[in-house]
Amino acid sequence: METRTELSTIGEFGLIKLIDSKFQSINPETIKGIGDDAAIIDTAGRELVVSTDLLMEGIHFDLAYTPLKHLGYKAVAVNVSDIAAMNAIPKQITVSLGLSNRFSVEAIEELYEGIKIACDEYKVDLVGGDTSASRSGLVISITALGTAEKKNIVLRNTANTNDIICVSGDLGAAYIGLQILEREKQVFLANPDMQPQLDKDKDYVIERQLKPNARMDVIYELRDLGVIPTAMIDISDGLAAEILHLCKNSGTGAVIFEDKIPIDDQTYLMATDLNFSPMTAALNGGEDYELLFTVKQEDFETIKNMSDISFLGYMTNDVDGVKLMMKSGTLINVTSPGFEHF
Amino acid sequence: METRTELSTIGEFGLIKLIDSKFQSINPETIKGIGDDAAIIDTAGRELVVSTDLLMEGIHFDLAYTPLKHLGYKAVAVNVSDIAAMNAIPKQITVSLGLSNRFSVEAIEELYEGIKIACDEYKVDLVGGDTSASRSGLVISITALGTAEKKNIVLRNTANTNDIICVSGDLGAAYIGLQILEREKQVFLANPDMQPQLDKDKDYVIERQLKPNARMDVIYELRDLGVIPTAMIDISDGLAAEILHLCKNSGTGAVIFEDKIPIDDQTYLMATDLNFSPMTAALNGGEDYELLFTVKQEDFETIKNMSDISFLGYMTNDVDGVKLMMKSGTLINVTSPGFEHF
Repeated sequence: METRTELSTIGEFGLIKLIDSKFQSINPETIKGIGDDAAIIDTAGRELVVSTDLLMEGIHFDLAYTPLKHLGYKAVAVNVSDIAAMNAIPKQITVSLGLSNRFSVEAIEELYEGIKIACDEYKVDLVGGDTSASRSGLVISITALGTAEKKNIVLRNTANTNDIICVSGDLGAAYIGLQILEREKQVFLANPDMQPQLDKDKDYVIERQLKPNARMDVIYELRDLGVIPTAMIDISDGLAAEILHLCKNSGTGAVIFEDKIPIDDQTYLMATDLNFSPMTAALNGGEDYELLFTVKQEDFETIKNMSDISFLGYMTNDVDGVKLMMKSGTLINVTSPGFEHF
Repeated sequence: METRTELSTIGEFGLIKLIDSKFQSINPETIKGIGDDAAIIDTAGRELVVSTDLLMEGIHFDLAYTPLKHLGYKAVAVNVSDIAAMNAIPKQITVSLGLSNRFSVEAIEELYEGIKIACDEYKVDLVGGDTSASRSGLVISITALGTAEKKNIVLRNTANTNDIICVSGDLGAAYIGLQILEREKQVFLANPDMQPQLDKDKDYVIERQLKPNARMDVIYELRDLGVIPTAMIDISDGLAAEILHLCKNSGTGAVIFEDKIPIDDQTYLMATDLNFSPMTAALNGGEDYELLFTVKQEDFETIKNMSDISFLGYMTNDVDGVKLMMKSGTLINVTSPGFEHF
């Protein structure tokens, strides 16, 4: 039998000590992490960027099919993604947890193992947090801090007409992965003896849902190439919603081309299997955490050979609105149903 | 009848817009607040301090007797208190909320009104956050950022033998206030026709529980006097626990004198009324949010006339442990039951 240590046996201070023992700071800017009233950070003259996310059990994740280690990783990655979307470098995070007593110490260690893997991968230091009991589900609140020189910071509202619209990776997979996990859960609930079928032909879309990447690699590559996007946002709510954000904030319109929207083969196959349109998944499915950004026309030559970037179209005049040019040649208006959590 | 607007009618983006409209930035360091992937902060060469707190309904607060406006104020104040305890100046906060649909838009506006009052009082800017649905109770996660010159930052682990132990305000009131609120709630639950009796003779202890102050006034006064404490912590878990923290972290012992521990008259009266020891409330009751700090002997002359500071005793050698000298002359060991949320 697996060891199960009740949280009450080590208590709040025991838990903090356990967490502290697993995390060593990497960044020289992290002067003091866990262990005082607040963490101390030296930003060395750079601008600080701050982002925060609240993940609630039953709303953002379902522990029926989400391994705690993946959840820990994802919670960090989605915050790092917000820092990346400012063209900044993530440096520190704080992690607060609301825990019910159904979680053992071992379960919380699993969660922190995922957090640690993400911290190592994105080179961020865990510098603080809070732990609390919860009367109900698991609550994870993460705040991420990053730095950038002022000239490198990229906002949402600074795209211009004729800028080229770029996106990293591929879209819609995380949403299709979620649909498969939900379907398998229903099968399992209906017949607990039937094990969920998570074959290799679904591994990509499921990993995209459970363990998304923050695209820091794109940020570093753009730096190496000397290109600063004119505007940037990360895709948490689907391509349509995010492109509308960029346009609304920048006061531009846009044209994007259906045949340029990157969709992975497995996403296509699995979407079809679910009787779901792959294009709808890409446009309105959430949680891809890819970067959507615009560059000046003159920068196109420099970035055109970037390996994992698609060029979707270009920004237009405000009055033109946001349009999708279909393969058929039809031009349709892009509107977003939004991604409302209430 | 009061207006009740369902949260679903304005949605997540409507809520963000509503919040944004109520908060204007005060600090020049706040370059960009709400509205992008992350907030942008210029720390102007100072060190940054970061603290975070997670407040959960049913664990940290009971909405049966906690007005939402007070709760919003308190959520900010307890974070500002952590920044104060670093001898730093609070500058920005992020506020994340998990909300069930039993909260109307008007209720959330009440909560933010309290947050706004605290932001104005402590001169902090709301720069971001996240809003989410919650399957159960209200969840409030706040992260506070502050700045200080490196030489001004005060930690927990830097007190020395013979340093004088100081505390602001008075202790135990918040705990007694909580006991009264809990008692009145039980009376009300037993007989809903009987209205809770919250007379003027209880107003101080109840306000200390529902709307505690962060003692930034003490921080500013110490700056004006040119005194930097040798160590500091805020009292969230009772005097005993916090003095043990200071001693354990600094490698010192301490002697404190019972007759120097500041307890308000109303705390005494109400504690007696509840058959509860006022001294136990001061030593082990939580949520006073006063500042406990140590200063060098040579600084005593400078601060001895500060209006709201009590001098409890002095730090001793590690091997002496932490002792309380009773009025009777008896010396007892201070141990802490701790303040465990699990």
